[in-house]
Amino acid sequence: MSRIARRWYFNARPKATIEGDTLVLREEPLPALREGDILVRTLYLSLDATNRVWISDWDIYMEPVHVGEPMRGFVVGEVVQSRNPAFAPGTLVAGLHTWSDYFVTDAQGFQSFARVAGLPLADTFGILTVAGPTAHYGLLSVGQPKPGDTVVVTAAAGAVGSLVGQLAKLKGCRAVGIAGSREKCRWLTDELGFDAAVNYRAEPVLECLRRCCPNGIDVHFENVGGEALDAGLTLMNNFGRVVVCGLISTYNSTGTAAPGPYMFRNVIMRRLTVRGFVILDHLDEYPRMTAELAQWMLEGKLRYRLHIVDGLENAAEALNLLYTGGNEGKLMVRIGAER
Amino acid sequence: MSRIARRWYFNARPKATIEGDTLVLREEPLPALREGDILVRTLYLSLDATNRVWISDWDIYMEPVHVGEPMRGFVVGEVVQSRNPAFAPGTLVAGLHTWSDYFVTDAQGFQSFARVAGLPLADTFGILTVAGPTAHYGLLSVGQPKPGDTVVVTAAAGAVGSLVGQLAKLKGCRAVGIAGSREKCRWLTDELGFDAAVNYRAEPVLECLRRCCPNGIDVHFENVGGEALDAGLTLMNNFGRVVVCGLISTYNSTGTAAPGPYMFRNVIMRRLTVRGFVILDHLDEYPRMTAELAQWMLEGKLRYRLHIVDGLENAAEALNLLYTGGNEGKLMVRIGAER
Repeated sequence: MSRIARRWYFNARPKATIEGDTLVLREEPLPALREGDILVRTLYLSLDATNRVWISDWDIYMEPVHVGEPMRGFVVGEVVQSRNPAFAPGTLVAGLHTWSDYFVTDAQGFQSFARVAGLPLADTFGILTVAGPTAHYGLLSVGQPKPGDTVVVTAAAGAVGSLVGQLAKLKGCRAVGIAGSREKCRWLTDELGFDAAVNYRAEPVLECLRRCCPNGIDVHFENVGGEALDAGLTLMNNFGRVVVCGLISTYNSTGTAAPGPYMFRNVIMRRLTVRGFVILDHLDEYPRMTAELAQWMLEGKLRYRLHIVDGLENAAEALNLLYTGGNEGKLMVRIGAER
Repeated sequence: MSRIARRWYFNARPKATIEGDTLVLREEPLPALREGDILVRTLYLSLDATNRVWISDWDIYMEPVHVGEPMRGFVVGEVVQSRNPAFAPGTLVAGLHTWSDYFVTDAQGFQSFARVAGLPLADTFGILTVAGPTAHYGLLSVGQPKPGDTVVVTAAAGAVGSLVGQLAKLKGCRAVGIAGSREKCRWLTDELGFDAAVNYRAEPVLECLRRCCPNGIDVHFENVGGEALDAGLTLMNNFGRVVVCGLISTYNSTGTAAPGPYMFRNVIMRRLTVRGFVILDHLDEYPRMTAELAQWMLEGKLRYRLHIVDGLENAAEALNLLYTGGNEGKLMVRIGAER
């Protein structure tokens, strides 16, 4: 008798925010394992802003999720049955798969998940799978900050942004965050060591940012797009770097409606380098980056919050938190209990 | 008795295009030469798109020309009187100075102008002072094209654009130009060796560009901004380079009115590097670049047109040709006769 699994499907393309019928949860029997397959019990699902991009009607950086297909996400789980000699039952594995409580895979693209001694599984998975490497590669490899530089980051209280500011501090920079509430701004400055933070919902962004960056901006790390990007471009120093990691403010739109930054001309006027990246292109750098990040986490030099939502059935609603700024820290769904 | 010179002044900031009272021509007595000064008789004035930027209300890449000051431009002239041992009378000098027929300068920033054997002075000055080095540095150093790459350039029949396409061909690339008339497009393909050209005034740019770039775009060299930039961003290949040399379509605007490219999100989706540059930052590379360019000019591998307007009094009106696309080739003003 086959086991019944629950799995989210991409049901109907959203016009803007994810609606009730965008993603639907279905029950389905799991297939029998073929030679090379593993059966995985999911423990955690990572929710990332880019999930929304995968179900957009845009021409994106990888194969999108098509209507009718299972929804995709980064997961960690435990092998419960195996016909693959590389993955014994009990092994923890992580990779890009579907939003489901159990799944069968040929294990292509899956790797043994390395626990970090001293760190809970949720922390290791939550920070070292996407957010940490994204912050590390984006700030250090793309942004190339030098000691004394001013680094500005948007969505600064988000999973990536909060790490970017702390990495900037570790590299001897001035870190300025832009976030969406007074509480978030306080967390950045009082607990994470940011030098300043701007609450974009309450304050005139350009004016406040100018005050927070008396020496201009050398590295602008963009997660959002829109007004904050324009403010950053306005204040960039000559030969500055603009790291384009995300444009979450545009993800809930269709077609080409969103105009680019009005201060685009400063790409010339300030001789800027504007570079976009996708962390999946840099998997070869993961060992070095995750080792550094884990060390800083253990030493308390990188602090973070995990925002864990319980239950696969709550995944779709939870995803919307990313676009309203409702999450506090790295957003993930706990699907199965750790043993 | 002091000599009377004619000189253009920046009189009133234009709202959009340069108007009748934006620049005014005045007569004024020249000052007596002090120790170190030279008196120069101007032969040619280079008109460049960036001249309009210098009189905008923007925060630009160098000290702007303020209302009331003489208008600035690249000039070549002959020393007619000298109290500077480095510049004997008769010497040709070139540098950034004012739009005038005679001027006195302390020679700061001026250099002896090196004639190139086999090339007329107008060609050497017109191509090797701004347009050539801009095309060379922008395409080869910023754009980093590889053989087989597809290179797209806007304002392709302009002084810089026409050289960019030919340099792309010299480097083994496919060159595609976007220009504003059928005649210009024909010049690009039939005489300069571009592989294809799109007439943006007559054809749907994105559709035509897609047809001209069956393998996508690897390097997009932007001189204009607007629709063509969006078309380029839409068709960029992964890890492509966008060279931002000019945004001439926005120069006749004030404040921050012009929206940036609507396809800005492709900076992430295609992992693009978008880099702006100003050739004045790279004077140290001039000797190498101008030597290469001159050689290619002499060998007939780099072809060009000079659009020479006669008479200092016609300079202001001529400048507008750049923003309407009315010039055919490198625009310059002949102010004094060569002896």
